[in-house]
Amino acid sequence: MPEPITAYQQLEQKFARLSALSGAAAMLHWDSAAMMPTGGADARAEQLAALSLVSHETLTRPEIADLLTEAEDATASLDEWQRSNLREMRHRWRHATAVDPDLVEAHSRSTSRCEMVWRTARLDNDFATLRPHLEEVVLLTQRIAAAKSAAFDLSPYDALLDEYEPGCRQAMIDPLFADLEGFLPDFLAAVLDRQKSYGMGLRPDGPFDEAVQRSLGLEFMTALGFNFDHGRLDISHHPFTGGVPDDVRLTTRYEADDFTQSLMGTLHETGHALYEQGLPKAWRSQPVGLARGMALHESQSLLIEMQLSRSADFMVYALPRIRAAFNGSGPAWEMDNILRLYQQVAPGFIRVDADEVTYPLHVILRYQLETALLSGDLPVADLPAAWNNGMRKALGITPPNDRLGCLQDIHWPGGAIGYFPTYTLGAMAAAQIFQAAKETIPALKAQVQKGEFAPLLQWLRDNVHALGSSRSTDDILKSATGAPLTAAAFKAHLQERYL
Amino acid sequence: MPEPITAYQQLEQKFARLSALSGAAAMLHWDSAAMMPTGGADARAEQLAALSLVSHETLTRPEIADLLTEAEDATASLDEWQRSNLREMRHRWRHATAVDPDLVEAHSRSTSRCEMVWRTARLDNDFATLRPHLEEVVLLTQRIAAAKSAAFDLSPYDALLDEYEPGCRQAMIDPLFADLEGFLPDFLAAVLDRQKSYGMGLRPDGPFDEAVQRSLGLEFMTALGFNFDHGRLDISHHPFTGGVPDDVRLTTRYEADDFTQSLMGTLHETGHALYEQGLPKAWRSQPVGLARGMALHESQSLLIEMQLSRSADFMVYALPRIRAAFNGSGPAWEMDNILRLYQQVAPGFIRVDADEVTYPLHVILRYQLETALLSGDLPVADLPAAWNNGMRKALGITPPNDRLGCLQDIHWPGGAIGYFPTYTLGAMAAAQIFQAAKETIPALKAQVQKGEFAPLLQWLRDNVHALGSSRSTDDILKSATGAPLTAAAFKAHLQERYL
Repeated sequence: MPEPITAYQQLEQKFARLSALSGAAAMLHWDSAAMMPTGGADARAEQLAALSLVSHETLTRPEIADLLTEAEDATASLDEWQRSNLREMRHRWRHATAVDPDLVEAHSRSTSRCEMVWRTARLDNDFATLRPHLEEVVLLTQRIAAAKSAAFDLSPYDALLDEYEPGCRQAMIDPLFADLEGFLPDFLAAVLDRQKSYGMGLRPDGPFDEAVQRSLGLEFMTALGFNFDHGRLDISHHPFTGGVPDDVRLTTRYEADDFTQSLMGTLHETGHALYEQGLPKAWRSQPVGLARGMALHESQSLLIEMQLSRSADFMVYALPRIRAAFNGSGPAWEMDNILRLYQQVAPGFIRVDADEVTYPLHVILRYQLETALLSGDLPVADLPAAWNNGMRKALGITPPNDRLGCLQDIHWPGGAIGYFPTYTLGAMAAAQIFQAAKETIPALKAQVQKGEFAPLLQWLRDNVHALGSSRSTDDILKSATGAPLTAAAFKAHLQERYL
Repeated sequence: MPEPITAYQQLEQKFARLSALSGAAAMLHWDSAAMMPTGGADARAEQLAALSLVSHETLTRPEIADLLTEAEDATASLDEWQRSNLREMRHRWRHATAVDPDLVEAHSRSTSRCEMVWRTARLDNDFATLRPHLEEVVLLTQRIAAAKSAAFDLSPYDALLDEYEPGCRQAMIDPLFADLEGFLPDFLAAVLDRQKSYGMGLRPDGPFDEAVQRSLGLEFMTALGFNFDHGRLDISHHPFTGGVPDDVRLTTRYEADDFTQSLMGTLHETGHALYEQGLPKAWRSQPVGLARGMALHESQSLLIEMQLSRSADFMVYALPRIRAAFNGSGPAWEMDNILRLYQQVAPGFIRVDADEVTYPLHVILRYQLETALLSGDLPVADLPAAWNNGMRKALGITPPNDRLGCLQDIHWPGGAIGYFPTYTLGAMAAAQIFQAAKETIPALKAQVQKGEFAPLLQWLRDNVHALGSSRSTDDILKSATGAPLTAAAFKAHLQERYL
């Protein structure tokens, strides 16, 4: 007779199936962005909706609740990873069951519609058309936040935040953001002043062959340790990293007259991808094997892009290869000029185009606005004015229209309130983690200049990637860097690079 | 108060979800063959297994049985398509529930394993290693056939056949195959004799740029009416047509030293793809909206490839374009020579490389062998010898090894017994349907020579594609061609083309 399997083991089986279903959805999301012809959209929406419904039904069946309780009563027989896995299962279950299924479905339908309207409204600079749809999304998101708030005994905003960055609370964000808000305005003024003294960088003349841009990206990805047996690089309008840890699908885009942004875009996604590929292999199908949260995910992309790839050391390795690939010569291709291009600071309207100095100011503005939207203090109708005021105060520039203002991001139309802060938490974490790596690997600078990234990757694997979700973000940061998250390393990095 | 929805309407909702899940699986199958890096295979297998399990669970829940009975008791309120849809639902339900779930799972696991072993065994020419796995698959397939035989009151082989070609029975196949068996040997001898008189075709000298081969394929696909808003063309080792009707994914492969086979491969898949794209739009998510069966599917690919594209009329349109694409000139590029290449007949060991004259002999041999495997008259151990004897009798050649013999096809290791006959039923149907189209469209010959394929496609849409599964294969053929399926048109076509 085989042993009867325990409640915990039954949960592992059920979550393995959930993992496979969400993996299927992840591949289809990638396909939608990178491969799908336009006419496939309706069928794809049905496929994704069916997967989401089936997963939700599976996770919220009463037997899962019973098994969770039973397993939690018998943790003595579990090892540390299994206990962490059980904790993560409970976390997912709580988020799935805290909200009435009808509300989940109404929210899902409302955000799908609002996203569609948003795509056109943004192009047409037409906030008025978006407004009623966004109002509905905000209303339903408020209801979800209220339900989760009651279920988790958290504030409504914290209850939403907890889905993107488990364990993160406004009480942790506020002092960090206040620190940056105190620091950045004067710092930005000083950087802009200093930039004036040596002028803007020269743009190398294109056109830059797409195949050459791609093969350069592949070369750098390979050098950084991306494993092409378990992933691929393709093209999409909005670059992202998708797929599953065993099969990571990155996308980038190429512009014929400028290779610089595309290359950094590829390297940014490579940072996300290395995290995914480095997640613990033994736990691939379980919640504890997943990436810890959005902040840590962003820290890995920004570590590779901002901390590493835009540095002078990296360019010692990279620039000769870039020049050779494009047959570049002349002043625009000199190290000083290329670094100037890659470290240029300029207040602008669009977050995704922002440099690392002004980016946090974009994020902090969105954080302030979305907390006010959620609490009801800011009616959706007043959003454009509040946005423009905020931009004027934060960056001294006023968007000439909503397309360059409050219509630029998909997050709110998509119902994602509580996501924005993770970008800047990630930037701070990237600086803090990279600083710790430099301290632990004394030869890192010389290795980077030679294109030897294996020691850095191994350090990241050991201290971040391979931990999956076994510990909290806070614990991972503390053990990797010796301290909880602060803005210190980020500020020090900015000062060193820009002043 | 909204009207309570009927049993039939509830079934439509449930089958729409099943359609979305199987659509998701179809996209992932395509991705596995066309996009996936090798290391993604394990995760993909889990994703597909989860989708298959969830679908099977959904379809076999007791509520579906109740709803089917209830809906069948109230067909008076249904229109003809709805009634056909209900019939197709019942057909799927019967196949899903006829077999004990444990047997389904054992079969599925056994075929997955056997397919894996087969991949290596074929390369290594190692039947001995495959044998125990194939024995297990055959045994479990016999059990499935027995269960379906009892449930459907059909012979075991007919019960399997019914899944691939609903309504098809051995009693229909046997006289058709006997007709071909009586005709083909003498015919083949005569064709080979005639070919001797003018020798083999000259092969145009390559290499042929892959991008040019691709763009030529795209040009012909577009001319034939393939809609690229609803599909794409990619590369895979074994060309196939996958995806869903709204997003059809074709694959082909290119050889640098021979464009001819790849081009016909692309056109073959285009025939499948046009059928999918032409299925009734209003029934996309329902069983009645699906392609009728494997025989009719193959008829559409063979109509486009064999009947149309390898014809002299098509080459009047295509050859100037082929020559221009490859800058071809000289004797190898003359019409007579290209037609000779595209209409060459040569007995060979490998079915997928066979010409249309010898192909049915390959299929008839497999049909004879698989019926004997299923009945138990042919033990798996005796398969290699039986195969080689059969090849000697059918084509006068003896495979020098099992790799070129009984190890060449994936069907039996994959548990697909009852599939092979559909290839040759499809070839006969293609000839019969194309003959009817020529009779109804007097200008067809001139249109084809000019590359005007819209009238042919419209005729196929009206008479085949848009009917979906609303009627039986037999009914579709009768109304499109005025007669049930016979070998007459196929034999007439062969005589006209080759003698």
